[in-house]
Amino acid sequence: MNAPIRIAILGYGNLGRGVELALRANPDMKFSAVFTRRDPATLKLLTDGVPVYGIDRLAEMHNEIDVLILCGGSAKDLPVQSGEYAKYFNIVDSFDNHSAIPEHFERCDRRAQEGGKTAVISVGWDPGMFSLQRLLGNCILPNGSDYTFWGRGVSQGHSDAIRRIDGVKNGKQYTVPVPAALEKVRSGENPELTTREKHTRECFVVAEDGADLQRIEQEIKTMPAYFAPYDTTVHFISQEEFDRDHGGMAHGGFVMRSGVTGVNGETRQMIEYSLKLGSNPEFTASVLVCCARAAYRMNAAGLTGAKTIFDIPPAYLSAKSGEELRRTLL
Amino acid sequence: MNAPIRIAILGYGNLGRGVELALRANPDMKFSAVFTRRDPATLKLLTDGVPVYGIDRLAEMHNEIDVLILCGGSAKDLPVQSGEYAKYFNIVDSFDNHSAIPEHFERCDRRAQEGGKTAVISVGWDPGMFSLQRLLGNCILPNGSDYTFWGRGVSQGHSDAIRRIDGVKNGKQYTVPVPAALEKVRSGENPELTTREKHTRECFVVAEDGADLQRIEQEIKTMPAYFAPYDTTVHFISQEEFDRDHGGMAHGGFVMRSGVTGVNGETRQMIEYSLKLGSNPEFTASVLVCCARAAYRMNAAGLTGAKTIFDIPPAYLSAKSGEELRRTLL
Repeated sequence: MNAPIRIAILGYGNLGRGVELALRANPDMKFSAVFTRRDPATLKLLTDGVPVYGIDRLAEMHNEIDVLILCGGSAKDLPVQSGEYAKYFNIVDSFDNHSAIPEHFERCDRRAQEGGKTAVISVGWDPGMFSLQRLLGNCILPNGSDYTFWGRGVSQGHSDAIRRIDGVKNGKQYTVPVPAALEKVRSGENPELTTREKHTRECFVVAEDGADLQRIEQEIKTMPAYFAPYDTTVHFISQEEFDRDHGGMAHGGFVMRSGVTGVNGETRQMIEYSLKLGSNPEFTASVLVCCARAAYRMNAAGLTGAKTIFDIPPAYLSAKSGEELRRTLL
Repeated sequence: MNAPIRIAILGYGNLGRGVELALRANPDMKFSAVFTRRDPATLKLLTDGVPVYGIDRLAEMHNEIDVLILCGGSAKDLPVQSGEYAKYFNIVDSFDNHSAIPEHFERCDRRAQEGGKTAVISVGWDPGMFSLQRLLGNCILPNGSDYTFWGRGVSQGHSDAIRRIDGVKNGKQYTVPVPAALEKVRSGENPELTTREKHTRECFVVAEDGADLQRIEQEIKTMPAYFAPYDTTVHFISQEEFDRDHGGMAHGGFVMRSGVTGVNGETRQMIEYSLKLGSNPEFTASVLVCCARAAYRMNAAGLTGAKTIFDIPPAYLSAKSGEELRRTLL
């Protein structure tokens, strides 16, 4: 039995806690430490006996940690932290700002190469597993169309946008795939779908006392980019109802590749991948943890620099030997 | 622009023709030759200008071919051919006898290592894409159950078994997943399903004139392993109806991973992958072709020996650069 892979978490929010829980399901890894920008004394882990350190202590811990899992946000934390720490640790992050990934990759790649480390970036489910399914679908069926649907689940960005509106006390936005669009894709018609045809947006809003509900609803529905291109429903509810019904973190979605083969493209071929997630952060964390194993093993194999899910030989995600995988899962 | 990857096909049946067609969708590859055990003069390709050679000519063509795609059967052809040619060519096969894969892998690995070649074995959809989904599901959700359903589609082995019965002129067997079982799995109940609960078997039989239909039906339904453990339906039809309605090669299936996360496994997480294939051999061939690209590129990168879909960094399946993949599909 090899020594367990020593994992540290940077940032202890929903995602960090998800990583903590996922590590319990992977006995080849050891939950070794949490690093935080908060006062370490204020953090109460779910696990006994694991030290919590201030982020300033990271620099001196190079030799105690095999992989650092970064659990901060993509807006402000990861663009700085992943690049910074990729030189000193094998890292894994869930950077999900799609348009900024090329730049994030370059920076992490340069830093990881400098330090001889491996940086697995932008893993989770999208980007991550959904990206992998898009890649596979494109490779197998070059003549075809990609469809990605998200939901039903909360979009953090859209919920934030609602909460910035004057008179709004609280708000949550669910992205919902349109069933008719899913069926149209499944039928093999290869439809061209507009933004409006693919998803609807459902908003639950707690307004401040005396606020003009009609004005709030109007402001939401006409908000450019966020809501205007969609059919949007707004429900005003009480704080009590909000707390009772809208604390969940369920999410999910669909990736479909609808393609054709044959002499004249006469044969329809359909690939569909879907996720129904009881908890978005716990699932994302579960992906991060198996990617931490891959980061460690790729580094041991001399595969340094930045990597995405496209670069990871799938067997590296598993604790089992190649022989066992072939015998049991192939 | 790099020189195209030169691909040859060994064995020109449904699968070989599927490879020929798939190559048309992949302009970075060149359909260079067909090798056959038949008289080459009797083969009429769908493509003009591609030479057909007897299999005895393979030995002298090492330098003309980058990857040899083996399109023979798993029962008799591939166990011999893959091992034989893995020493001289980068190869790809769709060997699908699951229990014999470890042995097949060892033999191909030894031979490929001897020749400094790369042998990608057992790719297609099961084994192949389904195996990959099983692996990913297991890595992400270690606490969970695997479910694989096949169909609706023709099982060659079961159709052969029907045709061996006395008084049967022709027969075809469809494997059909039980909708209630699929729904039970999707509900997250993690059911234990018996063989009978997962699939039914539907048989279409053309009997010889004057044959005892009741006896034939009885023999089918009680056949050990093949039909006895299943709810089996037998339809006697005319040769005309058989020819009209049962020449298709559609198939498909489902791979599901139903798992839990959380403090006490209280969070349900569901991954589902499904294929609806208008043509089983054309889809399998499409997988073989993108794996041929991976075989060529892995060999160029010094990754020699036998490989399965578990060992292939997904980006190697694509003709696009890493940079383009990150920008467009991640």
